[in-house]
Amino acid sequence: MRVLIVGIDGYLGWPLAQHLAERGHEVGGLDAFLRREWVDEVGGTSAIPISDFVDRRGRFRERWGKEMFFREANLVDWEVTSETIQTFQPDALVHLGECPSAPFSMIDVHHCNLVHTNNVIGTLNILHALRDFAPDCHLIKLGTMGEYGTPKMPIPEGFAEFEYRGYRDHLPFPRQAGSWYHWSKVHDSNNVMFACRVWGLRSTDIMQGVVYGTRIDAMGEDPRSWTRLDFDQCFGTAINRFCCQTLIGEPMTLFGRGYQKRGFLPLRDSIQCMTLVVENPPEPGHYRVFNQFEEAYTIAELAERVRRVAIRLGLTPKIRHIENPRIEAEEHFYEPEHQGLLDLGYQPTRDMESEIATMLRDLEPNVDRVMSFKNTLVPDIRWRGGRDRCSFVD
Amino acid sequence: MRVLIVGIDGYLGWPLAQHLAERGHEVGGLDAFLRREWVDEVGGTSAIPISDFVDRRGRFRERWGKEMFFREANLVDWEVTSETIQTFQPDALVHLGECPSAPFSMIDVHHCNLVHTNNVIGTLNILHALRDFAPDCHLIKLGTMGEYGTPKMPIPEGFAEFEYRGYRDHLPFPRQAGSWYHWSKVHDSNNVMFACRVWGLRSTDIMQGVVYGTRIDAMGEDPRSWTRLDFDQCFGTAINRFCCQTLIGEPMTLFGRGYQKRGFLPLRDSIQCMTLVVENPPEPGHYRVFNQFEEAYTIAELAERVRRVAIRLGLTPKIRHIENPRIEAEEHFYEPEHQGLLDLGYQPTRDMESEIATMLRDLEPNVDRVMSFKNTLVPDIRWRGGRDRCSFVD
Repeated sequence: MRVLIVGIDGYLGWPLAQHLAERGHEVGGLDAFLRREWVDEVGGTSAIPISDFVDRRGRFRERWGKEMFFREANLVDWEVTSETIQTFQPDALVHLGECPSAPFSMIDVHHCNLVHTNNVIGTLNILHALRDFAPDCHLIKLGTMGEYGTPKMPIPEGFAEFEYRGYRDHLPFPRQAGSWYHWSKVHDSNNVMFACRVWGLRSTDIMQGVVYGTRIDAMGEDPRSWTRLDFDQCFGTAINRFCCQTLIGEPMTLFGRGYQKRGFLPLRDSIQCMTLVVENPPEPGHYRVFNQFEEAYTIAELAERVRRVAIRLGLTPKIRHIENPRIEAEEHFYEPEHQGLLDLGYQPTRDMESEIATMLRDLEPNVDRVMSFKNTLVPDIRWRGGRDRCSFVD
Repeated sequence: MRVLIVGIDGYLGWPLAQHLAERGHEVGGLDAFLRREWVDEVGGTSAIPISDFVDRRGRFRERWGKEMFFREANLVDWEVTSETIQTFQPDALVHLGECPSAPFSMIDVHHCNLVHTNNVIGTLNILHALRDFAPDCHLIKLGTMGEYGTPKMPIPEGFAEFEYRGYRDHLPFPRQAGSWYHWSKVHDSNNVMFACRVWGLRSTDIMQGVVYGTRIDAMGEDPRSWTRLDFDQCFGTAINRFCCQTLIGEPMTLFGRGYQKRGFLPLRDSIQCMTLVVENPPEPGHYRVFNQFEEAYTIAELAERVRRVAIRLGLTPKIRHIENPRIEAEEHFYEPEHQGLLDLGYQPTRDMESEIATMLRDLEPNVDRVMSFKNTLVPDIRWRGGRDRCSFVD
């Protein structure tokens, strides 16, 4: 299949490109390298050193014997976005081109508006371009489990049969996001659902959990094939940040009580699931939602797992609680359903500890990099507004 | 109270300013005159001739003996928007500054993006400015009944108690909007709800039905106090358009079967309700939703009422069906609740036919204006994309 990966230079995009190429798909890409720019802006860096995209394309050419189709383009630019889709004529478009950071969107009005513009206008441009130039293409859009928030009931995959005053209807499950970033993803989910309804586009909207890990098999040992791993307060996610903290002897920091529960999955599972979705498109006009994660854990459980693995590797992990910069429930019901991908054939890795061990080993040569950027590990972006470094509370 | 009306130069904004001033409130305004620009762009005009805003302010000065605070500003400009709120220090801000047209948003990608940017970024700027400079101010935001779509159950006011797999929770009622415009309003409702939760802002989100009519009592006979009345395919709403069609001897055009049901209210009821909301703010941190309309009717019923009144006034009304340019259910369940405003004291006019008669009389001197713009009455903006003039189907 011809697969266009929007955001091909990112944490998920680059491994996905390699995995799909390995499986014989014709991979094309689009990126404006904004993730690199944003991580720079917040003072972070990738713990794993990553090549520039010219070298990545060189690696791709060497390994799979062909030039990769690529456009450097900002999604908010209609002309280039639509030209890319018209020219490449994808069978599937994987949209990883959204700004993925909740804290980044909460910095101030400018970042909130930037995230909204990048995500919402970018997605609207993709939808219009698909309608005009590739109406049969399957759009795989990355949403987030965070769109749902933490309702006091199980979370279905996108839709539920509800009853109200004796009437019943099959309705979109209400969203209760927890940051401007998460809301921008809700807006995008709604817009994609609408485009499928009025224009007959087909889409899979993936409500993904938090991804962790450094590796998939298709990468091998060439450094040009490695993917980024962020650990700053904006772009670093829980397990990745815990591993970096542990590696440099800093405590893993739990926000508040640490009983917040979320869905998690290793990088290899995320790539496996997206590939299954690419290879199993829905019918034209169908808008399909999958909750994509392996298992739900509390943040405290995750830190405990990192601690266990780190001890086995001879490290001296610590866990501490800090003020919660977010406004969120710190202990809550959480039972999201996730059957759709299993039905498509998803085989969960189910070995978080060996993933964590791999990650710690991959990070080990980069201790100095992490150490020089350790200031970005402790959050100071507050949900209520303003910046104020969080203190330890234990 | 100090009330800042954003979009004060519009169909609702200008009457509301006069009604609030008449009741002794200190009225301020902000507008970028985009509505005038957009109506020009689509080739329309106001059937009722309206003064420019300098003359409107002159009228305001004469009638209420004081200069009105005003800023010419585009809401997407953070600097001017926040400066306006900081300077005026409103107790209430009525946000009428959104682009209100479904067909306008469906023209092409550029109009879709313009509507999203104007509405979503504009509202985000207001929310941040309130947080930073007027956190106790009550935000009255105009949403639309169209956010809900037409579910197969009664529509509550914003929230409902739902049951799923034996669990119960009080959740936002799912939205199923029918155009890019309507979705942009959903995005704004979600963003306002979130700002109330994390920043403790207070807001009333008004899901308004379709407004019709030319008059409120506070206007009097000075032409500078009159408000616009649009009849083009983008900015003209059902009853207003039917009256203009009837006046020039053109048939009232029902889209498709004409059994689409919507909530409607006369201009004077809209102004009465918004005033009640302004004068009865919710508690800090509270996000309150009202469904604001007088009664629900099918489009066919409305045309029939206009026909009856027009015959009494000696006109020769006709009703015809044309192709539906929209993608929507043309016959459906529709039972939205609307108790909240009645509880606050709303007294519905309940006399649609005398409102229609007043409207036809107000429009009568402007037959030639309507006649010269009659081409804009028949829709050619198609929901599926492209432009193609709709044909009669009867």
